[in-house]
Amino acid sequence: MRTTTGWQSHDNSTALRRLPIERRDLREDDIAVRVDYCGVCHSDLHAIHGAVGKPTDGLVPGHEFVGTVTATGPAVTGSVTGDRVAVGTIVDSCGVCAMCQAGQENYCYEGAVTTYGGTDRVDGTVTKGGYSREYVLRDKFAYRLPEGIDPAAAAPLMCAGITMWEPMRAAGIGAGSRVAIAGLGGLGHLGVKIAVALGAEVTVLSRTPDKAGDARKLGAAELLVTTDEKQLAQGFGRFDLIMDTISAKHDLSPLLRLLGLDGTLSVVGLPLEVPVPLMNLTYGRKKLTSSGTGGRKGTAEMLAFAAEHGITADIELLPSARVEEALTRLERGDVRYRFVLDLSDLD
Amino acid sequence: MRTTTGWQSHDNSTALRRLPIERRDLREDDIAVRVDYCGVCHSDLHAIHGAVGKPTDGLVPGHEFVGTVTATGPAVTGSVTGDRVAVGTIVDSCGVCAMCQAGQENYCYEGAVTTYGGTDRVDGTVTKGGYSREYVLRDKFAYRLPEGIDPAAAAPLMCAGITMWEPMRAAGIGAGSRVAIAGLGGLGHLGVKIAVALGAEVTVLSRTPDKAGDARKLGAAELLVTTDEKQLAQGFGRFDLIMDTISAKHDLSPLLRLLGLDGTLSVVGLPLEVPVPLMNLTYGRKKLTSSGTGGRKGTAEMLAFAAEHGITADIELLPSARVEEALTRLERGDVRYRFVLDLSDLD
Repeated sequence: MRTTTGWQSHDNSTALRRLPIERRDLREDDIAVRVDYCGVCHSDLHAIHGAVGKPTDGLVPGHEFVGTVTATGPAVTGSVTGDRVAVGTIVDSCGVCAMCQAGQENYCYEGAVTTYGGTDRVDGTVTKGGYSREYVLRDKFAYRLPEGIDPAAAAPLMCAGITMWEPMRAAGIGAGSRVAIAGLGGLGHLGVKIAVALGAEVTVLSRTPDKAGDARKLGAAELLVTTDEKQLAQGFGRFDLIMDTISAKHDLSPLLRLLGLDGTLSVVGLPLEVPVPLMNLTYGRKKLTSSGTGGRKGTAEMLAFAAEHGITADIELLPSARVEEALTRLERGDVRYRFVLDLSDLD
Repeated sequence: MRTTTGWQSHDNSTALRRLPIERRDLREDDIAVRVDYCGVCHSDLHAIHGAVGKPTDGLVPGHEFVGTVTATGPAVTGSVTGDRVAVGTIVDSCGVCAMCQAGQENYCYEGAVTTYGGTDRVDGTVTKGGYSREYVLRDKFAYRLPEGIDPAAAAPLMCAGITMWEPMRAAGIGAGSRVAIAGLGGLGHLGVKIAVALGAEVTVLSRTPDKAGDARKLGAAELLVTTDEKQLAQGFGRFDLIMDTISAKHDLSPLLRLLGLDGTLSVVGLPLEVPVPLMNLTYGRKKLTSSGTGGRKGTAEMLAFAAEHGITADIELLPSARVEEALTRLERGDVRYRFVLDLSDLD
């Protein structure tokens, strides 16, 4: 066993404890990564508060991080010590099912092993996340960070970024596409940057006009205030794709009305079950879909695209000792647009 | 005014009355059609029973018919007297909105005028359907019936057929596609024929094995019994598109499990509102959609395709005086696969 230090949840509160964390000894195809920067994702809050039905005692969150390879198992061919790598929400999968074969390990039929709170396929231990100074994983699930990309600001690409990337690619977004991003937060602001870089005309949908300036700075053509009936009417039937990043439970009908013929509403904020009046899909043959993060193929493509277009997250970088502040501010939406923890204070 | 004879609902029961029906005098771009054959659609039952919230007193159902042009207005260019034409579920639309411009008049933003129970855009009268000996409509919404196609068996193409055609085209179904048809009735049996002719490998999903022989005769590779867990497991993750033609309210989750990556569940049986667990869409990035009938462009394409591939409905042809028998048998699912009324007994 190897020992490192991490931030651990013990009572469903955001007051994480700094504690020693065990990591497995390297297997043949494992690498050890010194975690340099780890993003703070909204689903970390869900996990801490137990929303996903798991005990949080012993939970170490963190599933979007960038680090440096410090050791490699004998069968590792993809990384060498000193490489800058990025790790996302999954760290293993069966590798043989149709989803894995299609490069969508995130949908592995045997269940992908999540970066924290997952069950290791070999020894059955529960995975612990990137709010820690070291992580050990199969080399296959670490991605070389492209040159010239800021490592701290790149960390959120590994969850927020890929979550926006894959549905846009699946929907064939490109030059001339009309894309709306509902909710301008961690996911949404990366969604705007990616859609703009793909050549789309981008609109931000928001309950308030507060972020109109930000939306334009990020490259959006405009911001439509969804609580304003007049502005909502202007958006009627206009979009090919709406990426819905809103995590609170909400009515999908007003968003569906903004779609044009064969338009797609992609719900990635995961408000869990929502009632869907089918008739709102019928008129215009609209599609409702959802997805979560991405597979190895898409993640590698997304990182290359991000590097080419200079896309990273707008972040607020904090020493990891301020993790509670990050979580509580995230909880009340007080972040533009992603907290990233600097783990060097754990040394 | 012109007078003809039709079958009219007066008390939400399937005991329709034979009564004189008024038709408007021909406008400049109108044609008069002698209705030869009219299909009996499940939505006729909904309308008669008042499920769509409209009074049924005075309702004349029927929205898939084939007839012969008997008179033309002076501005008509598409038809001449004696032409065999087919009419479907809509008889007018605004013609200028984005949907009409895209050839999807069925989704007209001003509301397409339905063939019965709709409101005429010019005089505000309520439209009366094809369970009658004559119909008057804008020439634009009548389609020349291709040569060599049986007119009685072609009538159901105009609702059941086009309802299956458009979603398959929108989903890009072709050689090698894996398509499942849930429910083998009026819509479903035409869905099998169309999907097979498009080159897809087709599976029928049914609650009972009764129709396995029929499914194969129609061209399906097999029938999966959805109440048999073992058979359902065999279908796991297999389909690119499932056309759900089931009109009763039902759980979509078992069907969603049968879809592969980026697969589509197209609900055309219109069970109205259903709860959709979004997570069932998330894993595999699946799409839920719905649609209803089709536009002028798709309808013309579908008719040409049907003629080319010899596709018509399997019908039971009855004199229109037996309309009540047709409706009551349809209500209990006792038809293989579509009733068509012969209106010549109204002369």
